[in-house]
Amino acid sequence: MHVLITGAAGFIGQLLAKELLNDPAYRVTLTDIHQPPIPAGVRYPQSATAIKADLLTGARDVVNPSLDAVYAFHGIMSSGSEANFDLGMSVNIDATRNLLEALRHTCPGVRVIYSSSQAVYGQPLPEIVTDSVIPTPESSYGAEKIVCETLVNEYTRRNFITGFTLRFPTISVRPGAPTAAASSFLSGMIREPLDGKKCVIPIEDRQFKSWLCSPKTLVENLLLTLRLPADSVPPHIRQINVPGICVTVQGMMDALEAVGGADKLALLTEKEDPALVPILKSWPTQFDNTQAISLGFKRDESFEQTVRDYKESLSQ
Amino acid sequence: MHVLITGAAGFIGQLLAKELLNDPAYRVTLTDIHQPPIPAGVRYPQSATAIKADLLTGARDVVNPSLDAVYAFHGIMSSGSEANFDLGMSVNIDATRNLLEALRHTCPGVRVIYSSSQAVYGQPLPEIVTDSVIPTPESSYGAEKIVCETLVNEYTRRNFITGFTLRFPTISVRPGAPTAAASSFLSGMIREPLDGKKCVIPIEDRQFKSWLCSPKTLVENLLLTLRLPADSVPPHIRQINVPGICVTVQGMMDALEAVGGADKLALLTEKEDPALVPILKSWPTQFDNTQAISLGFKRDESFEQTVRDYKESLSQ
Repeated sequence: MHVLITGAAGFIGQLLAKELLNDPAYRVTLTDIHQPPIPAGVRYPQSATAIKADLLTGARDVVNPSLDAVYAFHGIMSSGSEANFDLGMSVNIDATRNLLEALRHTCPGVRVIYSSSQAVYGQPLPEIVTDSVIPTPESSYGAEKIVCETLVNEYTRRNFITGFTLRFPTISVRPGAPTAAASSFLSGMIREPLDGKKCVIPIEDRQFKSWLCSPKTLVENLLLTLRLPADSVPPHIRQINVPGICVTVQGMMDALEAVGGADKLALLTEKEDPALVPILKSWPTQFDNTQAISLGFKRDESFEQTVRDYKESLSQ
Repeated sequence: MHVLITGAAGFIGQLLAKELLNDPAYRVTLTDIHQPPIPAGVRYPQSATAIKADLLTGARDVVNPSLDAVYAFHGIMSSGSEANFDLGMSVNIDATRNLLEALRHTCPGVRVIYSSSQAVYGQPLPEIVTDSVIPTPESSYGAEKIVCETLVNEYTRRNFITGFTLRFPTISVRPGAPTAAASSFLSGMIREPLDGKKCVIPIEDRQFKSWLCSPKTLVENLLLTLRLPADSVPPHIRQINVPGICVTVQGMMDALEAVGGADKLALLTEKEDPALVPILKSWPTQFDNTQAISLGFKRDESFEQTVRDYKESLSQ
């Protein structure tokens, strides 16, 4: 099975590539705006091809008739799209449309797994977001995701592709450095203390809730989408809200303490950031994932398990 | 007040232009892919400028800093977008995006009244569509409308424009010749008999319901949107379902008989069209227009009044 991953230099792209390249069943093409690395330590590195390409001009260079599936992960993230409207529109919309056009003409019917986000939702929101809540984005990133979701639906309805749109929860714990994203602390408050470093929590409310998914569970769900029957969602409604779990700041602290020891809590400081708090409070905090679960999607056991998995990954 | 109308050669564009050009308060620029006519018999024809332009390449040629408002009516209709996907995408999405970009840079904050359609809705639908039903289009036309609605929302949230999206009901009675649109008979079954001509109703179900709005009421609502306070809808949710009335085939026949006389009914034939019936049955038939009404939008009194108005317009 030949799988293309766009935005393959990113965290999720690399994680998924690693999984696929440990299985002899897959041939993987990795592409990104910079030459993407082939993940180290995989069992079948010879099954990987890495291509540097700009999807805005070179979508056809990474697409060929042998493709069975495409994971579309490229994109400018939320803070970047808000800071540079034109860049966000061209990378998040135009590059995706170019990719869909190339696929439609080169490998019609190919499975496309498009990464969307819970950022498609904005106020007003009910306590628990069901699949029948209208997405009303309050960010350029969210609006661009809605446009692409609509294209994935329409290209699927017209049999140009077999699309699935996965709306990701906030991924935690992410490895790497803190970022400018408003959600950065949702990984940092675990990752930094486990590394002996300090982290500031920008909200003084231990009951503040987030909707989180571990990288491990996300990858499981990405792989599952490769095998979902094409007709498991209607031809014109391809979106699936990927399951997450609702965790409070207190709950995250408890998990840190349980896995890392009580001394780690001393590395956390709570200090309200007046610019961040309204953004954080505009996000949905709980979803009804009945549809996804019935399709076979997995949900994290507990956030403590997520932290345990993250800690183990450090020693690998 | 300087008003631009795109797609100005079309039926609604001409009707609105006529209204504006009877009022000395307006200066009107009409544009279309072919040189649009200046409506005959208006009081202030000298207030009109007609420009032939292709918005795909020449959006900047029709936009200038003196504009106060823009009605975006250009587009490939539903059957055309379904028949030619690429044409629909470029005219319905790309031309609109080019227009929005030109407006953003040339007259930031300008009021944009974008014509969308109840075609954004698809199955599954409840008996009565409220503003909290998710649009799930089952046509390229509807999908393209959703993309543009999303852009209008986002451009407004970012203060690039002051957008309003009006989702039109089916307009009846339209003058002119029958078209290939599935909805064509919803005007034809009144217009043709009043003109002494036959019309075939493609569904054998007198209780089949449609959601209709007269041209007269639509124009009233278009003018009202020119004066709506910018903050009458949230900055990121600019859609308004324009009020319509629910009329059955039997109700339309009754109105024809009341206005045109019983002999007109003999010109109607009911003959099921198996290709059209599923399309007709996928459309929403009733809306809850509470929001629009509270904003001051008008609703037709009765379909009989619509037919009466249409008959009067013939003798003018």
